Amino acid sequence: MKPLAEQMDTIRRGAVEILVEEELEERLARAIAAGRPLRVKTGFDPTAPDLHLGHTVLIQKMKQFQDLGHEVLFLIGDFTGMIGDPTGKNETRKALTREQVAANAVTYKEQIFKILDPRRTRVVFNSTWMEKMGAADLIGLAAQYTVARMLERDDFHKRFVGRQPISIHEFLYPLVQGYDSVALEADVELGGTDQKFNLLVGRELQKSYGQKPQIILTMPLLEGLDGVNKMSKSLRNYIGITEHPKEIYGKVMSISDSLMLRYFELLSDVGLEELEKIKAGVEGSAAGRHPMESKKALAGELVARFHGGEEAVAAAEDFVLQFKKKEIPEDIPTVVFPATEAVWICRLLTETGLTKSNGEARRLVHQGGVKIDGSRVESEDVTVEPRGEVVIQAGKRKFVRVNFAP
Amino acid sequence: MKPLAEQMDTIRRGAVEILVEEELEERLARAIAAGRPLRVKTGFDPTAPDLHLGHTVLIQKMKQFQDLGHEVLFLIGDFTGMIGDPTGKNETRKALTREQVAANAVTYKEQIFKILDPRRTRVVFNSTWMEKMGAADLIGLAAQYTVARMLERDDFHKRFVGRQPISIHEFLYPLVQGYDSVALEADVELGGTDQKFNLLVGRELQKSYGQKPQIILTMPLLEGLDGVNKMSKSLRNYIGITEHPKEIYGKVMSISDSLMLRYFELLSDVGLEELEKIKAGVEGSAAGRHPMESKKALAGELVARFHGGEEAVAAAEDFVLQFKKKEIPEDIPTVVFPATEAVWICRLLTETGLTKSNGEARRLVHQGGVKIDGSRVESEDVTVEPRGEVVIQAGKRKFVRVNFAP
Repeated sequence: MKPLAEQMDTIRRGAVEILVEEELEERLARAIAAGRPLRVKTGFDPTAPDLHLGHTVLIQKMKQFQDLGHEVLFLIGDFTGMIGDPTGKNETRKALTREQVAANAVTYKEQIFKILDPRRTRVVFNSTWMEKMGAADLIGLAAQYTVARMLERDDFHKRFVGRQPISIHEFLYPLVQGYDSVALEADVELGGTDQKFNLLVGRELQKSYGQKPQIILTMPLLEGLDGVNKMSKSLRNYIGITEHPKEIYGKVMSISDSLMLRYFELLSDVGLEELEKIKAGVEGSAAGRHPMESKKALAGELVARFHGGEEAVAAAEDFVLQFKKKEIPEDIPTVVFPATEAVWICRLLTETGLTKSNGEARRLVHQGGVKIDGSRVESEDVTVEPRGEVVIQAGKRKFVRVNFAP
Repeated sequence: MKPLAEQMDTIRRGAVEILVEEELEERLARAIAAGRPLRVKTGFDPTAPDLHLGHTVLIQKMKQFQDLGHEVLFLIGDFTGMIGDPTGKNETRKALTREQVAANAVTYKEQIFKILDPRRTRVVFNSTWMEKMGAADLIGLAAQYTVARMLERDDFHKRFVGRQPISIHEFLYPLVQGYDSVALEADVELGGTDQKFNLLVGRELQKSYGQKPQIILTMPLLEGLDGVNKMSKSLRNYIGITEHPKEIYGKVMSISDSLMLRYFELLSDVGLEELEKIKAGVEGSAAGRHPMESKKALAGELVARFHGGEEAVAAAEDFVLQFKKKEIPEDIPTVVFPATEAVWICRLLTETGLTKSNGEARRLVHQGGVKIDGSRVESEDVTVEPRGEVVIQAGKRKFVRVNFAP
């Protein structure tokens, strides 16, 4: 095992909070001395996984623990998924069958093993212990937490204050999740910052059950392509890991330099020293790496991770060729532009900042200075369908990639 | 089966609330027409039973249902009793063993079958269905009720507002109790007024589980010998059903006339017409029964119920003899006088209202006008040990039975 300081540096990379850091150091030191790896738990939803880069932030952190010699537990919370919506009111939250859970687990594995080492990853299902648990033991579990403390959880608090109903079983779910840490005797649990409350429940319950409380480590929620909002399907600002290599490559090339740094920190395998050089480059230092080169390296690394090295090379070549052909630069900003119906070209030009007014936009179109995906716009009456992404060029040097959110 | 109107009169006797009365009438009418008795559930605590008259108010109501031809279910809530205090913090709420539950059930039966007909009483244990219930089904049960509604329960509300901790499992107990009604498909549930919330949970849950909601009937909490406070062991104002026949007889004779009416209504088998005559007597009507005679009849009925007819006769005779011997009247008021150490006789005389001041009390003692249990008090320095009950006489005609609460 690597020395303590090096392990801590790796573990700290990108983390928002480690609670309690001293406990982690102490437990790591003991693990190193005894040659006994820590058990690192991360919980995932059992519903059909179609991961995007946002999800892989945690998996990347798991990989780091794995590379440091620790045991990672990929926990699929299938027990509650198989319960579904017990009130029967929510049609969309149907109970998963055992077969669906198994099928989803296969899909999960296909995806996560592009990052994690399958031989050193334990995929576990909480139904294994929860299905054996009787009502009496669940009551015993529920006794370990108070109503007031549960109501401190952000979403419960808001709903309670806003007089929106909270079903009592919703109080049991964080306890079930926390009990998973007891069942697994987890040393560390990883989660997004939005999971902090639940991770702490696990820590508390371990104490109640006479175990050493787990250390919790929260990772940030990854920003989407717009650099502002959390990456999510519904905002259409995501990069899905099963997307086409050219798509992934192109989307990575479209992000801002500062977002690129963030992605490097949270998603890339480059070491901490290398990370410093990339950062220096973005900050304009001559000693640093050129940002455009860094971005290509990141795009290549991510495509290679999910689709292999050959696809990465092909995507890189295609990217260069495509932009040469259309005479548009490789590195242009993305603007997320939510729209549900066709948008007038002049409005689009103005609202994305390419022109200062609709009047200027009209003149530019008349002068033949506006292109959509490399094709000249011939009339000021043109509208653009809000599907996927388009690259708009205004004059010789101004470009914007427009992403139509749904 | 008796006609509807007669059944309703019997069922209404002494009841505080029937919810919903129209539903009960409708269901009774159908039961009479089909010759199918209603299932009447009453829940009891599984801890060691040592019943007093307060507990028998519900059992008497069960008997009335039984006499009307319905099926009564004596439910022992042993499931939660066998869980005990899951936090392990409350030493006094230890988990009952299966053997203890069985032993307690035997004791229960010995006592309740002095009122109920054993051949027509089903004694049931909720562990029968609750022990088969898995954690998943309990989650499904918990989904049927909201946190806000549970917090409407008086004691929860008070504790929540007062920032006293409520463990989450406490929210599950009313649901388990309510689920018992689902498991038993109860038509009616009886309970004290303090149980109303829980009875309503049962009603609600039956709806959730697709059953016709039970009708709930609440009975008052019986006043103790003082006529004011709820009958309870800790207030020492109770009549235990296993007490000595003479004790029971004597305690009944000590209650006020208005409390006697209450006991007749809630505890006696006398019919509604007879009840009217007793009431008229207490109100001074010449057509009514003399209160002293009524009281003897009640004392005799209750002793006979718990100890048999012979003991009732013996207790009645002994009561008369004893009072003749001590030259004290048979019918004297009881004063509950909480004390933990010996009480000065003059203070006792004044505070029980026998004398107006300690000065008057002193003079009366000097004149030889004060007796304790028929023995003259010879000195004004006498103190009285606060054990059980004593009869104090002041002058020729003033008597008080003093009950020393613990």
